[in-house]
Amino acid sequence: MALRSVALQAQNRTSSFFILTQRLVHRVQTQSVRAFSSAILSPPSKAVVYELHGSPDAVTRVIELPPVEVKENDVCVKMLAAPINPSDINRIEGVYPVRPQVPAVGGYEGVGEVHSVGSAVKDLSPGDWVIPSPPSFGTWQSYIVKDQNVWHKINKDLPMEYAATVTVNPLTALRMLDDYISLNSGDAIVQNGATSIVGQCIIQIARYRGIHNVNIIRDRAGSDEVKERLKSLGADEVFTESKLEVKNVKSLLGNTPEPALGFNCVGGNAASLVLKFLRQGGTMVTYGGMSKKPVTVSTSSFIFKDLSLRGFWLQKWMTTDKAKESRIMIDYLLGLVREEKLKYEMELVPFDSFHVALDKALGKLGSHPKQVIKF
Amino acid sequence: MALRSVALQAQNRTSSFFILTQRLVHRVQTQSVRAFSSAILSPPSKAVVYELHGSPDAVTRVIELPPVEVKENDVCVKMLAAPINPSDINRIEGVYPVRPQVPAVGGYEGVGEVHSVGSAVKDLSPGDWVIPSPPSFGTWQSYIVKDQNVWHKINKDLPMEYAATVTVNPLTALRMLDDYISLNSGDAIVQNGATSIVGQCIIQIARYRGIHNVNIIRDRAGSDEVKERLKSLGADEVFTESKLEVKNVKSLLGNTPEPALGFNCVGGNAASLVLKFLRQGGTMVTYGGMSKKPVTVSTSSFIFKDLSLRGFWLQKWMTTDKAKESRIMIDYLLGLVREEKLKYEMELVPFDSFHVALDKALGKLGSHPKQVIKF
Repeated sequence: MALRSVALQAQNRTSSFFILTQRLVHRVQTQSVRAFSSAILSPPSKAVVYELHGSPDAVTRVIELPPVEVKENDVCVKMLAAPINPSDINRIEGVYPVRPQVPAVGGYEGVGEVHSVGSAVKDLSPGDWVIPSPPSFGTWQSYIVKDQNVWHKINKDLPMEYAATVTVNPLTALRMLDDYISLNSGDAIVQNGATSIVGQCIIQIARYRGIHNVNIIRDRAGSDEVKERLKSLGADEVFTESKLEVKNVKSLLGNTPEPALGFNCVGGNAASLVLKFLRQGGTMVTYGGMSKKPVTVSTSSFIFKDLSLRGFWLQKWMTTDKAKESRIMIDYLLGLVREEKLKYEMELVPFDSFHVALDKALGKLGSHPKQVIKF
Repeated sequence: MALRSVALQAQNRTSSFFILTQRLVHRVQTQSVRAFSSAILSPPSKAVVYELHGSPDAVTRVIELPPVEVKENDVCVKMLAAPINPSDINRIEGVYPVRPQVPAVGGYEGVGEVHSVGSAVKDLSPGDWVIPSPPSFGTWQSYIVKDQNVWHKINKDLPMEYAATVTVNPLTALRMLDDYISLNSGDAIVQNGATSIVGQCIIQIARYRGIHNVNIIRDRAGSDEVKERLKSLGADEVFTESKLEVKNVKSLLGNTPEPALGFNCVGGNAASLVLKFLRQGGTMVTYGGMSKKPVTVSTSSFIFKDLSLRGFWLQKWMTTDKAKESRIMIDYLLGLVREEKLKYEMELVPFDSFHVALDKALGKLGSHPKQVIKF
């Protein structure tokens, strides 16, 4: 992967994939013959590549990348599964604050099985399941070669789609519950966008820890079924936005205490509703803006209600000191999956149908569960 | 004051001031004769009283309250000066979150001279200057009797109007500079409403500490003169809002570093401009909303720019542990006044003209400096 990605990045952005591929093949073949004829090579890798930023369905292509060398500290991983997350789409669009240098391979998290290891690798063996941790660019391809330190070995006793998706959404939920205020059993949180995977994870982790959770969903056909589904996951209260058009939303709380912490992934009115539920001195963490509307806050919410408003960005968090412990957190989350305390809906899609999965992830084909590519 | 305020509060809200006053006089006279014929009594006190919440010019009256007993731990203070702050007006209007019980005497801070002391008072003597610290309701009257612990003795070597006003605006500026992030010499702050007294104090304290300050003022006739006045106080940069209608406000900063901390007392567009100036990970503290417009924040400001939004309320702060040190802070601020490092414009108005001062404070007579009643 190292050699391949360097070569990819060195290419002029306007070069065609044909030329790109030809040069890479030539380079690897030449090097193989000259310098390390006994070197281990990866198999060729089928990859979702984009050469320009733009609409993902227009700029991504599936191409075959040539074999690369597996150096002594490298591990060659045969990818098993990788999701299409909204942030993956934003990265391809070029609207993400960290703009990957093109040409680039899509994807940011996933799970794979060790295919071969370099001569100095002791802790990983063919057949092990691994995830890139911290996550990094380029998981949408069939084989990845990276230094052994990149890979975190996990147990193989759970569905691959959970291993493939644990690093982004469940970890976001866990960090947001832990990193802003100290919550104890019996406290309460409130969130909008409760049907998102992060939202579902928040409900389940909160329930697991004895934290009450108040959930806001948008008005939609079938909202009663959605409510029941969220309640079956552990939601204490579920309100559609229109049910909250009352003077004092807290009067709807019953025995649930006033939430100390709120999560906003919607913006606009749905964010204002989270603020209304928060108790004096509460904190709202924004991690998404699905409505594309800003957050609007009254002056008195800051001065007299003493609310704090913050944001969470996983990719930034991954650069912090705390992230050193992210593998422990991932094991904790996968443990919850194993105990069936943490579940969410996904759809595994064969790699050959990548562009159908992409269209579903882009919302072009109606509402679908999280799309996870199966290699 | 204790007896007087208890009696005031015990009155039925509909009772007239005549009855109120008559009863108090009767009570004090009776008690004086019966129980403590040798007790020290305060002089009668002329006070700005309101019986109902409402527009201050309609509900306030100046009446004379009868003498009260100065008990052994009490100090009777002849008030020298007390300002009319916006929060005083809000309290009378009844729109403040803490609604004083009526009937009540107006005012929250001020300075006075000790008139007489109870037999157990050792640390204060007639002639000393004192301020109520923490501040408390009822400073708009000529004599106040309260426990010795309420009074903080200050030096008499500075203009009474500064002593009268140090506890609200300058202390707000100091706390906001100190309590949210750690600022070092060479760092920068940004604020809107820079012509307010808090704004002017922020400029001067920041300058005193080597902290760059970026200031936003509204467009108005004579804005060039306002700019020059703020620069003479120590402002590094002063922009009118219209000058900031550019794509990248930070390009206007020159050598001033990107501000880590921002202050908002306006809301609306002026708050958005503060947010635009803030550096990655910066904090904005809201302490007022002069435009009566809310604060609007993009999702990406929270997630990708990692901004934190907070609020400051002095009255709440006064209930915190830190407030125990507020007398030290007040001495520090009065020291800055003495060194002429801290100044702001005020207008001393004789108590007899209270309702003219009130009209000026209410903005009914155009723009005027802070009104300070001189007793």
